[in-house]
Amino acid sequence: MKVILLSGGSGKRLWPLSNNSRSKQFLRLLAAPDGSKESMIQRVVRQLEAAGVAADGIVVATGAGQHDAVSNQLGPDVNIVTEPTRRRTFPAIALACASLAAEGTPLSEPVIVMPCDTYASDAYFAAIGSMHRAVEEGVADIVLMGVRPTFPTTKYGYIVPRTMPWRNNAAAVERFIEKPDVDQARELLYEGALWNGGVFAFRLGYMMDLLARYIPDTSFANVRARYSELPEISFDYEVVERCSSLAVVPYYGEWRDLGTWNTLTDELTEPAAGNVILDSCTDTCVINELEIPMVCIGAKDMVIAASPDGIIVSERKQSEKIKHLVKELDKRPMYEERRWGIYKVIESVEFPDGFCALTKQLTLNPGCALSYQRHSSRDEVWTFINGEGEIVLDGERKPVKRGDVITIPKGCLHTLRANTSLTFIEVQQGTNLIEEDIERFDYEW
Amino acid sequence: MKVILLSGGSGKRLWPLSNNSRSKQFLRLLAAPDGSKESMIQRVVRQLEAAGVAADGIVVATGAGQHDAVSNQLGPDVNIVTEPTRRRTFPAIALACASLAAEGTPLSEPVIVMPCDTYASDAYFAAIGSMHRAVEEGVADIVLMGVRPTFPTTKYGYIVPRTMPWRNNAAAVERFIEKPDVDQARELLYEGALWNGGVFAFRLGYMMDLLARYIPDTSFANVRARYSELPEISFDYEVVERCSSLAVVPYYGEWRDLGTWNTLTDELTEPAAGNVILDSCTDTCVINELEIPMVCIGAKDMVIAASPDGIIVSERKQSEKIKHLVKELDKRPMYEERRWGIYKVIESVEFPDGFCALTKQLTLNPGCALSYQRHSSRDEVWTFINGEGEIVLDGERKPVKRGDVITIPKGCLHTLRANTSLTFIEVQQGTNLIEEDIERFDYEW
Repeated sequence: MKVILLSGGSGKRLWPLSNNSRSKQFLRLLAAPDGSKESMIQRVVRQLEAAGVAADGIVVATGAGQHDAVSNQLGPDVNIVTEPTRRRTFPAIALACASLAAEGTPLSEPVIVMPCDTYASDAYFAAIGSMHRAVEEGVADIVLMGVRPTFPTTKYGYIVPRTMPWRNNAAAVERFIEKPDVDQARELLYEGALWNGGVFAFRLGYMMDLLARYIPDTSFANVRARYSELPEISFDYEVVERCSSLAVVPYYGEWRDLGTWNTLTDELTEPAAGNVILDSCTDTCVINELEIPMVCIGAKDMVIAASPDGIIVSERKQSEKIKHLVKELDKRPMYEERRWGIYKVIESVEFPDGFCALTKQLTLNPGCALSYQRHSSRDEVWTFINGEGEIVLDGERKPVKRGDVITIPKGCLHTLRANTSLTFIEVQQGTNLIEEDIERFDYEW
Repeated sequence: MKVILLSGGSGKRLWPLSNNSRSKQFLRLLAAPDGSKESMIQRVVRQLEAAGVAADGIVVATGAGQHDAVSNQLGPDVNIVTEPTRRRTFPAIALACASLAAEGTPLSEPVIVMPCDTYASDAYFAAIGSMHRAVEEGVADIVLMGVRPTFPTTKYGYIVPRTMPWRNNAAAVERFIEKPDVDQARELLYEGALWNGGVFAFRLGYMMDLLARYIPDTSFANVRARYSELPEISFDYEVVERCSSLAVVPYYGEWRDLGTWNTLTDELTEPAAGNVILDSCTDTCVINELEIPMVCIGAKDMVIAASPDGIIVSERKQSEKIKHLVKELDKRPMYEERRWGIYKVIESVEFPDGFCALTKQLTLNPGCALSYQRHSSRDEVWTFINGEGEIVLDGERKPVKRGDVITIPKGCLHTLRANTSLTFIEVQQGTNLIEEDIERFDYEW
């Protein structure tokens, strides 16, 4: 069995800890069994491995913006399939399947597609094992996970199972209803309907057939090149709703989306993280990722979080509003985890004449290197404050270490490699300081 | 009449907006009549001028750490007397008096001593005028301001006036009781006692006589040189309690110390200042001096403030606790206003081997210069991002402008002057990065 983990999301609902490059599934806030902290995606992978359902391998389907975060969190060996552009779940799953086929996965092999940010008990992963066996035994073309509903929400799709017969914990699907109104939802609950948990199982060949209707040559390179020809549509609408052979495996355990402050803070085991002093606070969760201290006195039932992107102070119940409020704040991320390490923006200023300066602190991990790059509209000054490495400036290579100052004028090709953990302060200057002002080239170290 | 304004205080009670160099009286948070914002010290000076009691000049008595803040806020023409070390109010007032005498102020001239951070109505300044006249007419050696008490607090001194006779709105003082217990305070209220408002009036010569008991040569230079010989004691204990000729002028208007979050926020006319989004907040005051956005949702009856020094989120009623909580946070100030401009610390990092790097953004005001200085244990890299000026490195002078990068190794004598507003990023590196690692020299521009 192969597992495709879908990793997407813009993460506005957990602002300021999440941003476009650091979605909620990457926040290391949950208590891991060994006492350390783990993220949602790390937790799901750990649970998949513990349940023995990931033995044949995991593929993470994601966008280019999340590639480095996935690889940093799951290790360099994880298989990542990067969409050329973001086009919803049907194209993303099709591309990941093309990648599995290209690697030699047999078309008869069951594939599980699942979200990377569900907070569920171990029984959830046992249910995934049942889905796998149901596909293997040909119960249906597509096997869904049906989660026992707890209230008549209009946010999910509903699956009405046939009551008989059950094979391998799976029942045939009578009907599939996407996001009903609340009256319909209430009736569906009486009928014994289940929520669509967003977990799908099918044989690899089933999906490759569907893909071939849009792109007959289903080789990975060709699908990737012609990715924009795939319809921008969800897997539910494109595949599940049109499929006549559907079965469902029910799951009756804990199942939560920790995608809002209100739901996430329920799972945090400590009231405060970071440089925080709490005094007389109740039912309050404080996360401070800034280095400056935060003092909270007498807060009741609140969520308080600070990161280089901003600060939220919210009553818990109302914290979902953040999603809409931060639409007004569509700024560059001030903190990113990249494949080579991390950076944070420590200061940004625009002068009356439109000239800008942006100061970052960057740390490269040992053995990692930046791409060989140049910028067309900014100069950079790098002051090395820790570690050792090598810099290349227009082809000329030389060592750098703590105390060195390097000036990189616009147009100069440059790259940097860390021998030890290497930290420097970068001052960017110019009139258009955007991450996109970068041309990348190959460099043979 | 001369006015001596006492400017002191460490400002822990308004943390994080105030710090040791930016005490509460310098926070520009109050609404000025012209619609702009003014600080407590600016408000007091404006009111003194409007009442016509400052016509003969104001002297600000303060410590070296506040010299630049006073001069930035009150303008370059203000007369500042800086104590060589901080030694409480008796020595500070004595030094300021020596300075007045040295300038040629007649010994018969009435002098008013007052705090710089009282929030009071115009009637308060009219009462000061009455105190002046009472001294002029010889009603007593020392004339105090008596504020009408509103509750039996143990925090103030109490003045019991004789009921008759009154001359120039002044009554003789029957008794003077410093910080009574609460039962005593209650009785004092029945007796018609008044709070000691911390405003004193006397003839210059009276104070010079007292000073001469400790330092017979009362020339300003000599008093300043022998400042440490003056007793470290308050004016109340050293002078008022021992004086047999005391009178009091009552003041019945508004009189408040805006020195805590709880009292200060009552006077703020807007619920939010800075980069703040408020949603559904009630009775909440938010001040964000950071550049990153702050979003507050559903906060009730809170004080929320952020500065480069830290962040407070507190229920209003409990906000006085901050004074004790921040004792644990005795860090360097992250933001200071100096005579030459401002700086803020934008990043500070210590590596496992004890080596530190501290990154600042500094802006020099046009025409201003740093002292000619050198550091014994840090190197500095300056990247100029705006403006033009001149730099001197070991005696060699040259122009600097946006884009220039200057390296200043330890031991190198350096100074900088701004021709226009001049902004640069400074990266300090070394093992002991403290403001005190500085030797200052003279430089003739």
